[in-house]
Amino acid sequence: MITLVNGRRTDQVSIHDRGLAYGDGVFETMLSVKGEIPLWDIHLARLECSLKQLNIQPFDTNGLFDMIKNNLDKTRQQIIKLTVTRGIGPRGYAPPIPCKPTSIISITNREPGDALLRTNGFKIKLCETYYARQVKLAGLKHLNRLEQILARMEIAHTGHAEGIMLDQTGKVISATMHNLFLVKDGAISTPDLTFSGVAGVMRQLVIGLAHDENIPVTIKEISMDELLSADELFLTNSIDGVWPICELDSTIMTVGEITSKLQAKVREVIPSCD
Amino acid sequence: MITLVNGRRTDQVSIHDRGLAYGDGVFETMLSVKGEIPLWDIHLARLECSLKQLNIQPFDTNGLFDMIKNNLDKTRQQIIKLTVTRGIGPRGYAPPIPCKPTSIISITNREPGDALLRTNGFKIKLCETYYARQVKLAGLKHLNRLEQILARMEIAHTGHAEGIMLDQTGKVISATMHNLFLVKDGAISTPDLTFSGVAGVMRQLVIGLAHDENIPVTIKEISMDELLSADELFLTNSIDGVWPICELDSTIMTVGEITSKLQAKVREVIPSCD
Repeated sequence: MITLVNGRRTDQVSIHDRGLAYGDGVFETMLSVKGEIPLWDIHLARLECSLKQLNIQPFDTNGLFDMIKNNLDKTRQQIIKLTVTRGIGPRGYAPPIPCKPTSIISITNREPGDALLRTNGFKIKLCETYYARQVKLAGLKHLNRLEQILARMEIAHTGHAEGIMLDQTGKVISATMHNLFLVKDGAISTPDLTFSGVAGVMRQLVIGLAHDENIPVTIKEISMDELLSADELFLTNSIDGVWPICELDSTIMTVGEITSKLQAKVREVIPSCD
Repeated sequence: MITLVNGRRTDQVSIHDRGLAYGDGVFETMLSVKGEIPLWDIHLARLECSLKQLNIQPFDTNGLFDMIKNNLDKTRQQIIKLTVTRGIGPRGYAPPIPCKPTSIISITNREPGDALLRTNGFKIKLCETYYARQVKLAGLKHLNRLEQILARMEIAHTGHAEGIMLDQTGKVISATMHNLFLVKDGAISTPDLTFSGVAGVMRQLVIGLAHDENIPVTIKEISMDELLSADELFLTNSIDGVWPICELDSTIMTVGEITSKLQAKVREVIPSCD
């Protein structure tokens, strides 16, 4: 594993870093394939948007790409985690002005996933832990992730690959580490993330690919009933690409045509994503 | 400043610590006076309760007290920050089982506050950033504190000492780093924290002291209207003790008898708290 903190080879950060103290920062998890980062532009755009929303400024993203790329293995798939925190600060919630952000990069080799599950589908369940509604943080991949941890703990021993999280009003938001799409009558919908959840990079890519294929996509509030009556369900994230769902609690789902088509389209953009 | 990570003198922690990755941990901020920690028992009880709620187990709290006490300065007031995270883990929200928690201690000297403000009162304002309602995290002093950071940023340049935060339904919860009490007709009330906010150690102490003084205390939902029509308002936290409020936005408040009485009572428990 390669680890860099502010460009220096180390795996240590200060205990006074606000990322540790308060979760005051954001992160991106990216896939590299043979030394290339196919979705870099979308990741960078989201990173910059998140930093702006949290006013973690100034942070120069210019050197990041080369710094990461120079450390990639050109023979394989790797997972890059890029964290940017507000940096070191004194005790107290008030951010230092100006702040001096900390960049943290780790690069690990990716082990191949289970090809059979990627074809036949994953089993998932509904979690009890919900997402709170917070318009100022929704969409961002920030470092305050206790809700997803609590939800993930619910499926630690159940044999499910993922857990579905609702918001506190009962609307479907996402899985704990994947975005969620449903297919009904040839059209796609995915939950509106104005108040909760993470707006994933793969979600954005898949919406674009569906448009290219003339498959209608709607971003909207989605209920559990709609989810259970969907023709197909699939999950997405930057590392896993498209995961078909074959079972949601006791409901058996079909791995359908549209899911498989989008899975193939993602594979064209990111050759070894699946 | 003295810093200890897992009992070792260092100010560095692994970038793979889940405290940094996800805010997966809790903290306590404590005041020491001449080498003693007057509210240790309440802090320890809250810490253990928070760790249990987040299932950060097993963590042996037995050695903590001596470890901290041996590093205190017996001549002055100091601020102790004790953080316990779930420790190092691989990428992903799923906690390692069992986890090996990280304890992080920092001890800094406390500078004296402004005595005049502590007598005459502080000016505060209402913040726009609200607390989301999350029953599984409410009350805990966990490391996911972006909401309070965003609220605190709102008063960075306004000249206010603190900002009041509501929840998303408009109920009053607390200030960004203090709990909140209001006095009306000789009785005290403080917001119910079932869904949002941090249940402060000083809040607990003050509730007990008020009971001792036969001042009725109610924990309940509180509206902004009730706040504005209070006879007295005060804020509490472990370091500041009791802060009287003299102005909430454009409303002038009186620093009244009950606030002053409780301030004095806290000073008896923690001699140099104010």
